[in-house]
Amino acid sequence: MKKYETYTREELQQEKELLLKKYKDYQDLHLNLNMARGKPGADQLALSMPMLDVLNSASDCHDKYGTDARNYGELLGLREARELFADLMGISWEETIVVGSSSLTFMYDCVSRAMLLGVLGSEKPWCKYDKIKFLCPVPGYDRHFTICETLGIEMIPVELNEWGPDMDAVRELVKDEEVKGIWCVPKYTNPLGGCYSDEAVKALASMETAAKDFRIFWDNAYCVHYVYEDVPVLNMLEECKKAGHPDRAYLFGSTSKITFPGAGVGFFGASKDNVEFIKKQISAEAISWDKMNMLRHVRFFGSAQGILDLMDKHAELLRPKFDEVLNALYTELAPRGCGSWVRPSGGYFVTYRAPEGCAARINALCKDAGVTMTGPGATHPYHDDPQDSTLRIAPSFPPAEELAKAMEVFCVAARLAMVEKLLV
Amino acid sequence: MKKYETYTREELQQEKELLLKKYKDYQDLHLNLNMARGKPGADQLALSMPMLDVLNSASDCHDKYGTDARNYGELLGLREARELFADLMGISWEETIVVGSSSLTFMYDCVSRAMLLGVLGSEKPWCKYDKIKFLCPVPGYDRHFTICETLGIEMIPVELNEWGPDMDAVRELVKDEEVKGIWCVPKYTNPLGGCYSDEAVKALASMETAAKDFRIFWDNAYCVHYVYEDVPVLNMLEECKKAGHPDRAYLFGSTSKITFPGAGVGFFGASKDNVEFIKKQISAEAISWDKMNMLRHVRFFGSAQGILDLMDKHAELLRPKFDEVLNALYTELAPRGCGSWVRPSGGYFVTYRAPEGCAARINALCKDAGVTMTGPGATHPYHDDPQDSTLRIAPSFPPAEELAKAMEVFCVAARLAMVEKLLV
Repeated sequence: MKKYETYTREELQQEKELLLKKYKDYQDLHLNLNMARGKPGADQLALSMPMLDVLNSASDCHDKYGTDARNYGELLGLREARELFADLMGISWEETIVVGSSSLTFMYDCVSRAMLLGVLGSEKPWCKYDKIKFLCPVPGYDRHFTICETLGIEMIPVELNEWGPDMDAVRELVKDEEVKGIWCVPKYTNPLGGCYSDEAVKALASMETAAKDFRIFWDNAYCVHYVYEDVPVLNMLEECKKAGHPDRAYLFGSTSKITFPGAGVGFFGASKDNVEFIKKQISAEAISWDKMNMLRHVRFFGSAQGILDLMDKHAELLRPKFDEVLNALYTELAPRGCGSWVRPSGGYFVTYRAPEGCAARINALCKDAGVTMTGPGATHPYHDDPQDSTLRIAPSFPPAEELAKAMEVFCVAARLAMVEKLLV
Repeated sequence: MKKYETYTREELQQEKELLLKKYKDYQDLHLNLNMARGKPGADQLALSMPMLDVLNSASDCHDKYGTDARNYGELLGLREARELFADLMGISWEETIVVGSSSLTFMYDCVSRAMLLGVLGSEKPWCKYDKIKFLCPVPGYDRHFTICETLGIEMIPVELNEWGPDMDAVRELVKDEEVKGIWCVPKYTNPLGGCYSDEAVKALASMETAAKDFRIFWDNAYCVHYVYEDVPVLNMLEECKKAGHPDRAYLFGSTSKITFPGAGVGFFGASKDNVEFIKKQISAEAISWDKMNMLRHVRFFGSAQGILDLMDKHAELLRPKFDEVLNALYTELAPRGCGSWVRPSGGYFVTYRAPEGCAARINALCKDAGVTMTGPGATHPYHDDPQDSTLRIAPSFPPAEELAKAMEVFCVAARLAMVEKLLV
């Protein structure tokens, strides 16, 4: 095989006809396949079914500190749960809040409270400024962008590479005091699949920001979600403390992709001063979150090691799916010089970088052949991917045979889009 | 026994000495009793322990519409759960959202979103007004007031009697377009214990408000929580529709005092247009809430009738506690003309109206004898009870013998405070 860009016009025309025929054959199969969302597969969900036996009608529902998980109280979470997830984050339990079933909801809530009330150290609520801006490494997570867009926060895209955001750009942009935050998925980034380097973490922790109340929204959604190998990422809270900015980091995580999506527990980490400040704010919105589910998780895992042990099993189930995607890309697309990607060590996604101007076309071709992908532009603020190049592949949810078929369709679509482009 | 106000000064002095001696005896017992919060007792929590067996590792976790409760999806809640709580509220499932584990959190969220984004029909987000005001029937629920205070919403107290708020005052106040909402606990009001009459419901639904986007926050926390007898209260959503203001009502409820406080499910009811509008807003803050807990509740109850059956058992456990409180009041305080109260038909509270200027003193006396009550002023916006008269008694949590002792102390404190006042 040779690269498409070396093809003659005639060769391209032949290739196009061949691909159109293949594509038509896939259409005739009337497929209904989905690689759109980072949802665990049924086999992964089955791993956590034993958690449902942990609490039953004969259980003592008090934690080891004597708190009855069935009743009101403990706004910051069951002490045992705070300890467990603190261990996982590498911070202290006093720096940890265990919240409801979704870290996304708590992220939204943190931004929403910042708008209405401000954060620790704010001169005024953020909504009192004419404009507030957040830095958004791209490609990034669409739901982070939706929070900003909904709350009227201007998003500034910053290029993300395999090892973190373009720090020269970041350092320059945070000289603007309207820039109040940055969204980061540090480990197995959503969707690029890279990991923040030590340099990137230290640079974010130590940079000078014009806004005194700047916050790093450190969405460590995939902190223990290795697939091929565990890539260590520095502890952002620790680095912020060392750099003299202890209140800069907001850490988020959840068990949504450890136990049950939407029915797990979310957790949050920050300096003790932040935690105390936030405690006062959230006392207006809750008496306590679901401590029964916290207790269920605590007893199911036993310890942070218990979480890691479970993640080994997830990795075993996910690895063949990532293999499938990557093999397809390396076999079908790489030799033809059709697009590029980072080989992720973990997480839930592979980002396919199509030749410029091809992403929307590939997405449409997939859709018309019954393969649903995350919409083009979803990885960028305001759905604006200026290169029309980035597509997110989510291999976790479809069963293996469906995934293989979906990737066949995807690769034909990607090839066809590039050939069409070269023929224009 | 005769009324204190008929006592001679000498009789009052003797009574004071007698009461001081009794009070000292209670202090010597070094009690540690709590009538502060509306928490279910351990015997009530035990009623819902079988719910923990409903989902186990062998369970099929799909609802009858095929949704896997273990995975992402269904932002407005599991369909079966929406149907169940719709039935309970007497509305349709399309008008119902089942949320996380706390209706309070969703109330806060509704007000917070109104501030940041506005509600259906708003000209602009409420935070863009110079001032926003809410009407607060008093005595009322402290956490409603905390939401307003935290978000900078001015609270205007309106007198609440056994059958609802002073509607003449309400009708006058809503002529101010800065008045955007009213907090109501319609059934077994927190803490007065009354129920909104049909007239009150219809008047609230039909009144003309200057604000086109006025909302009634109808916190029906005790909708099925009868203790002595079920008092029917009109369906506010229905009445708002009839009156031509279909979008005015926001209904809230939860299973916090049906199954487990903080670990139950919250629900919300409103017009379909409101639900569609809110769906767009909350899509920024959640993918879905805990559907596993929804499924657990759906299968435990079976139907709305199943909820009512469970509430019969709660009532059996609560009735002796309310008896204890009311007997103490009627035996010790009524004959002495010491304060007044409404005999509640249900709910979680008895409101004691002390002689003017005595509430804080009674509270302090109780505290110094080891009996914790809800702080004085908690029933009023800004903790400002101008008559210093209202105290909330929460009988549910302490075991029977502790409650009896706590009420002894309370009655001695109430008598002593009144006698002291008459002696001044």
